Amino acid sequence: MIATKRKPITDLSGYCETLGRHAREAARILSTVSGAQKNGWLMHSASALENRVDEILEANEADIVSASDCGMAPSQMDRLRLTRDRIRTAAVGLQEVARLADPIGRILESNIRPNGLQVLKIGVPLGVIFFVYESRPNVTVDAAGLAVKSGNAIVLRGGSEALHSNAALHRILEESLAECGLPENCVQLVATPDREAVGKLLQMSEAIDLVIPRGGESLIRRVVAEARMPVLKHYQGNCHVYVDRSADLAMAERIVLNAKCQRPGVCNAAESLLVHQEIAQAFLPRMGEQLTQRKVELRGCEQTRRLVPQARPATDEDYFAEFLDLILAVKVVGNLEEAIDHINHYGSKHTDTIVTNDLSAARAFTAAVDSSAVLVNASTRFNDGYELGLGAEIGISTDKFHARGPCGVAELTTYKYVIMGNGQVRGE
Amino acid sequence: MIATKRKPITDLSGYCETLGRHAREAARILSTVSGAQKNGWLMHSASALENRVDEILEANEADIVSASDCGMAPSQMDRLRLTRDRIRTAAVGLQEVARLADPIGRILESNIRPNGLQVLKIGVPLGVIFFVYESRPNVTVDAAGLAVKSGNAIVLRGGSEALHSNAALHRILEESLAECGLPENCVQLVATPDREAVGKLLQMSEAIDLVIPRGGESLIRRVVAEARMPVLKHYQGNCHVYVDRSADLAMAERIVLNAKCQRPGVCNAAESLLVHQEIAQAFLPRMGEQLTQRKVELRGCEQTRRLVPQARPATDEDYFAEFLDLILAVKVVGNLEEAIDHINHYGSKHTDTIVTNDLSAARAFTAAVDSSAVLVNASTRFNDGYELGLGAEIGISTDKFHARGPCGVAELTTYKYVIMGNGQVRGE
Repeated sequence: MIATKRKPITDLSGYCETLGRHAREAARILSTVSGAQKNGWLMHSASALENRVDEILEANEADIVSASDCGMAPSQMDRLRLTRDRIRTAAVGLQEVARLADPIGRILESNIRPNGLQVLKIGVPLGVIFFVYESRPNVTVDAAGLAVKSGNAIVLRGGSEALHSNAALHRILEESLAECGLPENCVQLVATPDREAVGKLLQMSEAIDLVIPRGGESLIRRVVAEARMPVLKHYQGNCHVYVDRSADLAMAERIVLNAKCQRPGVCNAAESLLVHQEIAQAFLPRMGEQLTQRKVELRGCEQTRRLVPQARPATDEDYFAEFLDLILAVKVVGNLEEAIDHINHYGSKHTDTIVTNDLSAARAFTAAVDSSAVLVNASTRFNDGYELGLGAEIGISTDKFHARGPCGVAELTTYKYVIMGNGQVRGE
Repeated sequence: MIATKRKPITDLSGYCETLGRHAREAARILSTVSGAQKNGWLMHSASALENRVDEILEANEADIVSASDCGMAPSQMDRLRLTRDRIRTAAVGLQEVARLADPIGRILESNIRPNGLQVLKIGVPLGVIFFVYESRPNVTVDAAGLAVKSGNAIVLRGGSEALHSNAALHRILEESLAECGLPENCVQLVATPDREAVGKLLQMSEAIDLVIPRGGESLIRRVVAEARMPVLKHYQGNCHVYVDRSADLAMAERIVLNAKCQRPGVCNAAESLLVHQEIAQAFLPRMGEQLTQRKVELRGCEQTRRLVPQARPATDEDYFAEFLDLILAVKVVGNLEEAIDHINHYGSKHTDTIVTNDLSAARAFTAAVDSSAVLVNASTRFNDGYELGLGAEIGISTDKFHARGPCGVAELTTYKYVIMGNGQVRGE
C-alpha cells in the first residue's frame, strides 16, 4: 500500500485520468454524506494516527535519512521531521475540525417570492480539490481533514522529500475511510514523484474543481501558469503597521514589536512601518531602539534615519519586500492619505493595521486599504483562521475571487439554489 | 467622442495599458464612493438615455445599415435594433438597479473573539471588470449599471456590429459620470474593433480582476483559453424536468409546457424530460400530444416511443444537447436514482426540477443533483436573477467558484475582514 512500493507507473496519463475519475466518484458520494459520518472519520483518523505513531515515525526516518544524504539544510530538515508531539498535534487538529459546524447543507440566505416560491441558498461542496504542497508532512493530515469535513474529495501531492512520511499518513487516513464506510478515494495521494503528473492533473478541469498550491512562490507561479481550473493561492505577505498622528504610542510600540518580532518568518508578520510625521520625533527614536535591541535590522527613509541613526537607507525594493526575517522597512509619511497610497502601491493586499485614536482616520483606513484584512489597533499577526474564529485554515488567499484571507471549511464550499414550489410556472 | 471618430490607434499595447491603468484608478475612487452618489448616477443616466433617444437611434441606424449591407440574418438584425421602447426599458433597468440595496460596506458576518477583537466581514468591490459581449446593445447599459452599483470600474467590449450604438450609449453614460462628479473612467469602451485588443486585455491580470464573456460558446471558450484572470462564465443550459412516481400529473403537465414552450431559446428552458416508469403510461401519451400540438419535436427512448408514437428515436447526443428550440428529449427512468444519475451525467449543472409529492424524493433530488438551481414543483424558467429576488443579473454562472447561478450586484463583490481592537497583540 505504500506509494513507493507500488509497481512503477508506465502510463502516466492513464494513471492521472483514473485518479481524477475516482476522485469525482468519491466526491459524488461524499457530497450527501451526513455530518456525523464525516466527523466519525475525523475522530477515527485522529485515534489511528496516535495508535500508529511508530509506523509514521519509521516512514519519516526514511525521508530524514535520504534528506540528510542529499545535504538538506538543518532548518528544512526540521520542517520535514515528525515527532510524537507533532503527530499528536495533527490528531488534535482533526478532532477540532470534527467539532466545527458542518458547512454543507446550511441555509446561507433565503427569501420568499411574491408567487410563493421559497428560494434557499444552500452550502454545498466544491467537488474535487487538488492540493500541491511542499510543506511539512503534517499538512497532509490537515488538508485531508478540512477537505472531507467540507464534503470534498482531495488529491494530495506532497514534496518528494516527504514521500515516505506522506504515504504512511495517507495510508492511515485511507484505511480509516474504509473502516468508517466512506469511499477510500475521498483522500488520494499521487503515487509517483514524477513532476509531469502535476502538469497532467493541472489540465484536468473536468475532474478537478480547484487547485490549492502551498509552498514557495515558484511552485505557486508554476501552478497558476499551468492550471486550467481555479487556483486558490497565497503570494506574498508584505504587511504594514501605520502609526497615525493620534496613536497611543505605548500601544503602537507593543503592536509593532508583536507584528515584527513574535514570529518574523510567517506571512502575517509586519514588513513595513509607516509613521505620521507629526509623531515621528516622539515615537521613532524609542521604537527604533527597542527594535534594534531585538536584533531587527531597520531600513528607513531620510527622515527616519535622522531620528534612528542605526537605520540603513531603504530602497524602493525594501518597501516592496516580504523579508520573512528580522528586517523592517520604515517610512515617515505626511498624512493618512500618503500612508494609504503607500500601502496600496507597495503592499500585497494581505494584512495592514492602523494604530489610531481618531475615528475618521480608522474609517478611512479600513475603507481604502485594499487588503484581505485591515485592522485597527491590533497586531497584523491576527489574520489567521483560528484567530478570526474560522477554525483551522488550509491557507490564506491573497486573491479576491471566491475567498479572501484565511480559508477554512466554509471557503472550501460553494452553494446551490434550492427552490421549493407548489406548481409555479412563469408568466410573460 | 464617438469611438469611430477617434484617431486610429497605432500603439495597441500602449492603448490597452492606458485603459487598464485608468480603470484601476477609477476603481480605487469608486470603491469608497457613497451609495447615494452611485444611485445618483444611475438615475441621471436613465434620464439622459431617455432625453437623448434620437442620438442613440441615429447611431443604431448606422449599425443597422452596415449590418444590412453585410447580409445579416433578420433575427440577428432584430437583436441589434434599438427602439424607443427598448431604450426606455434599459433606462428603467438603471432605475431598478438604483433601488437595490448597496452591496458595498454591508457586514456579511461578524464575531467577537475571546480577546475582545471584533471581526467584521465586509462586502467590497472586486475592482475592475472586463465585459466582452456579443449581445444586444442595451446590454452595454445593463452591465455598466450593475458594475458601478457594485463599486467596480468596467471595461466594455461589445460586438463590432454594434459599434456605433455602443459608442453612443457609452458616451451618454460617461458624460453622466462626469456630471455626477464620478471618474469618467468608471465605464470605458474599447475604442477599436481590433480583435487583438481583447487578447491583450485578457493578459492584464494586474489591471483586471474579472472577465465576464457573454455570447456564443466560441467567444466564451476563447476568453477562457486566453484569460490570465478569473472568468465568470455561462456555458450551456441543458435543463431537465423529472416527473416522479408521486407527481401531481396535471401540475407536471403545466410545468413541462412552461419549461419547454414559454421561451424555448433561453438557457433555463427545459431540454429533457425524464419520467418515472410507473407513471409513464398515465402521463406520457397526453403530455406528448400537448407538446406536439405546440409544435415541439419529441425525441425519445424506446419506452417513450411505445407511448408516444410521434417521437423520433433519441440519440445519446440528444440527451447532451442544449436545443434552444422546440425540441425535447424524453426518457423513461426506472427510479429516482436513475433520474439523478442521468441529470448529473448528461446535464450542464444549470437548472433541474423534480415534480413530486414525495418529501424524501424531493430531499434526495435537491441534495444529489449538482446544479446551480434545483427546483421542486416549479418550472426551470425561474432560475433568473429577477425571479429569485437578486435583482438584475449580469449573467448566470455555470461555474462553482465564487458565484453560481444568477449573478447580480452581490456576486460582483468580494469581502475584506475589518478587525477592530484596542491594542491586542498575539501570544504564543
